[in-house]
Amino acid sequence: MNLEKLFKPKTIAVVGLSKHNPLSPGRMILLKNEYEMDVKIYGIHPDGGQLEGVKLYSRLEDLPEIPDLLVIAVNARDTLEYIQQCVNLGIKAAIIISSGFAEIGGEGIERQNKLAKLSFDNDIAVLGPNCIGVYSPPLIDTIFLPTERITRPPKGSVALISQSGGFLIDQFFVKFKERNIGVSTAVSIGNRAVVDETMLLEYFSNEDQETSNIAFYLEGFKEGRARDFLDIAKKSEDIVISFFGGVTEQGRIATQSHTASLAGNSKILSAALKQNHIIQPKGEGELLTYLKVFEVLSHRKKPFGNNTITYGNVAILSVSGGHGVICADLISKYGLTAVQFTEEETNKLKQRINPVATKIASFNNPIDLTGAVLDIDIENILEGLSEIERIECILLLLLPYPPNISFQIGRRIANIITVKKKPVICFIPYVSKYSLIIESLEIANIPVFHSIKEVVQAAAGLKLRTRIMNLKKHNIYWE
Amino acid sequence: MNLEKLFKPKTIAVVGLSKHNPLSPGRMILLKNEYEMDVKIYGIHPDGGQLEGVKLYSRLEDLPEIPDLLVIAVNARDTLEYIQQCVNLGIKAAIIISSGFAEIGGEGIERQNKLAKLSFDNDIAVLGPNCIGVYSPPLIDTIFLPTERITRPPKGSVALISQSGGFLIDQFFVKFKERNIGVSTAVSIGNRAVVDETMLLEYFSNEDQETSNIAFYLEGFKEGRARDFLDIAKKSEDIVISFFGGVTEQGRIATQSHTASLAGNSKILSAALKQNHIIQPKGEGELLTYLKVFEVLSHRKKPFGNNTITYGNVAILSVSGGHGVICADLISKYGLTAVQFTEEETNKLKQRINPVATKIASFNNPIDLTGAVLDIDIENILEGLSEIERIECILLLLLPYPPNISFQIGRRIANIITVKKKPVICFIPYVSKYSLIIESLEIANIPVFHSIKEVVQAAAGLKLRTRIMNLKKHNIYWE
Repeated sequence: MNLEKLFKPKTIAVVGLSKHNPLSPGRMILLKNEYEMDVKIYGIHPDGGQLEGVKLYSRLEDLPEIPDLLVIAVNARDTLEYIQQCVNLGIKAAIIISSGFAEIGGEGIERQNKLAKLSFDNDIAVLGPNCIGVYSPPLIDTIFLPTERITRPPKGSVALISQSGGFLIDQFFVKFKERNIGVSTAVSIGNRAVVDETMLLEYFSNEDQETSNIAFYLEGFKEGRARDFLDIAKKSEDIVISFFGGVTEQGRIATQSHTASLAGNSKILSAALKQNHIIQPKGEGELLTYLKVFEVLSHRKKPFGNNTITYGNVAILSVSGGHGVICADLISKYGLTAVQFTEEETNKLKQRINPVATKIASFNNPIDLTGAVLDIDIENILEGLSEIERIECILLLLLPYPPNISFQIGRRIANIITVKKKPVICFIPYVSKYSLIIESLEIANIPVFHSIKEVVQAAAGLKLRTRIMNLKKHNIYWE
Repeated sequence: MNLEKLFKPKTIAVVGLSKHNPLSPGRMILLKNEYEMDVKIYGIHPDGGQLEGVKLYSRLEDLPEIPDLLVIAVNARDTLEYIQQCVNLGIKAAIIISSGFAEIGGEGIERQNKLAKLSFDNDIAVLGPNCIGVYSPPLIDTIFLPTERITRPPKGSVALISQSGGFLIDQFFVKFKERNIGVSTAVSIGNRAVVDETMLLEYFSNEDQETSNIAFYLEGFKEGRARDFLDIAKKSEDIVISFFGGVTEQGRIATQSHTASLAGNSKILSAALKQNHIIQPKGEGELLTYLKVFEVLSHRKKPFGNNTITYGNVAILSVSGGHGVICADLISKYGLTAVQFTEEETNKLKQRINPVATKIASFNNPIDLTGAVLDIDIENILEGLSEIERIECILLLLLPYPPNISFQIGRRIANIITVKKKPVICFIPYVSKYSLIIESLEIANIPVFHSIKEVVQAAAGLKLRTRIMNLKKHNIYWE
């Protein structure tokens, strides 16, 4: 089944729009795509006429061309008729927004079975039903909730696939935007009657050049499809990461009512994911932190350093002792190692900073430059650390409070790091005025986080990604 | 030793200010307190004259009155002389900003020993050295970093004591402000040569009426003082919560260079804290979540409900299935229980919402009202849940995306909850336009968080606090 027309359509049509209710999903999809997106969209309404300047057609057959994709937002009862029209007209892809299928039980299950048979028999790529569809910027956006209510993430390297529409637009859209993580395409799979997570994994892994990282929120695999999913993930050159809901007893009770699927025995699930190089984050926080790091790395044509590097050996550079202590506590917890400096290295580092700071700074790892630090000291120490080959990654805890730190510090760090090619992960407090510093760093591919824990998580993510890349390259399974 | 003059001085004097360097700490403290705080402040400079409109005095003896507190920001060498002057003049409290004591080793240790002896012998409450002092709004603020760089938290119920100045102003000030958690007083203890964490615990517990919660960041107890700290905490009527840095091997290496103290064997430490009713959060995130809940509760004259309540039995109300699933997964992890509804209760709840939503909503716990929800449905279900006595706390996952949810929803929920007196903890995505909703809720003492995990953590915090309160009341130790 070819999914390209779901995500890269040149033309789409939408059925099920109200001329009177401004909040009807079909109407919102028509106007949003007409006025905000690149795709060519046609609206279908039995009465024809027009809607806010957009001409409406009475029937699909009247359209000046056969659209690549049909978006269906009519009553559940009428959906099958429209899929039949897709068959008749040769429309090869459809998104069904409508609910009233397996999720309501009884006749809904029957309706969904008919839908699946009709679609598979005629090779029509149907997304849904009971979904909010696709966001593939700058082309198409069927997320039919008011634009002024819902934040959208920027364009990027992550294909994002969610079994829950609410989780997609909130936990993902809001938090991706907040963290500046970009999506290639975002997909709400709904009841996945036809197109399922395994087909999507295959498509984004093999056929979509914009995607480097494939992220899932799932409450279980579609019945009978787990093995295929795992096999495809194992062979994928992209990073596959999946967060599972419904892994506890209480969560399972919740999924039964939500999408009628189970994450199953969570230990078996975790083992299978690991064996097939699928990252399973511990929570949404870890998922987001990993994706942010992976996004930054996806911009790099080559990995940092050579092939033997693990990224597990870090140096911590702070301007506050307490931050250094907490960071050091966390790196043990996350399986990272603080590089021990030789006496010679320590002495060399000491000579790089201003005399006042030299006296009170400490040069263990973490290095604490204290509040007596100047911009130039941070530059010089970063340069010094970059030259120590055993250090694979630098964790920079940058509090812009000391009076002699200027707001140019971001640009100055970026200049050093861009030349030195050593990965740096940065902590900066979340205060809006520091956005000046943050932007200078992120534009230079230095990811910035707002908690020390996330910095350490990010370093652990970098290590994990490197390990998986190496295992994949050599066809080695995890132990 | 009486600490009141450290935190509630009527008059203070500051020595060690530069007329030429606008960033000198003494100068910043003078001008900040003169122009922004309520205390009466005098500046001391050998040349006299004035500074930005503030009259300077050549010597302490020339002041028109004996100040309650002296802030010392001179060279380390000259500090002892000023403490001697405190002795001579009868000044009973001092804050020493200056560094150059035990933290630099050698002569610094000797200097600190002399300082301690002189202060103890003469009963002078000295805070520091090597600290950033005290923030006690609206009275006094000696945090000498530029006001335009450092966020300050609002006034509230938390006494906040930190062994790291950097951690205090960043991890605490920034994040308290972000989460709207208020402080009664914030204290940087520096090298704690005289005033230590145990004295502060005693003061805030017994003598400060504004404080209901006492929070510490420590890297270990002052030598020989652990037993006293634990005893006082056990007897305190306030909630005592302490986050420890330097609890791992790597973290210990860091603290040795930072404040020359050890958190010691972390398992023994944790057991001792628990036995003495001191909450030890797992990380800074948990600390902040707990404090936010405790702050809200400190406004309440009486606890919710009766004495047998545990707050462990919760109901989850969501408008998105995925959010409900993740929340349900987390409540198991955090030791909470989802109340099971009887068939009668379920039917009653169903009758409370609009007919479209009734069909697709699910009424397990979590309840998922779906995107078809109206404002009034949420009100009605909250009312229904409030009437089920077994439910001790409601976790409300409110995504304001559905088209029929209005921005009045905050006020409407607050109206219901204020009458019903059942604790509600709310999730709302972190998007600035929702501040309208968030403010309406928080003003009604409904704490709002921006992740599902924090909501569940907060409910666990409420349960923990209740348990500790009950144990304290009956003089029972933890098992």
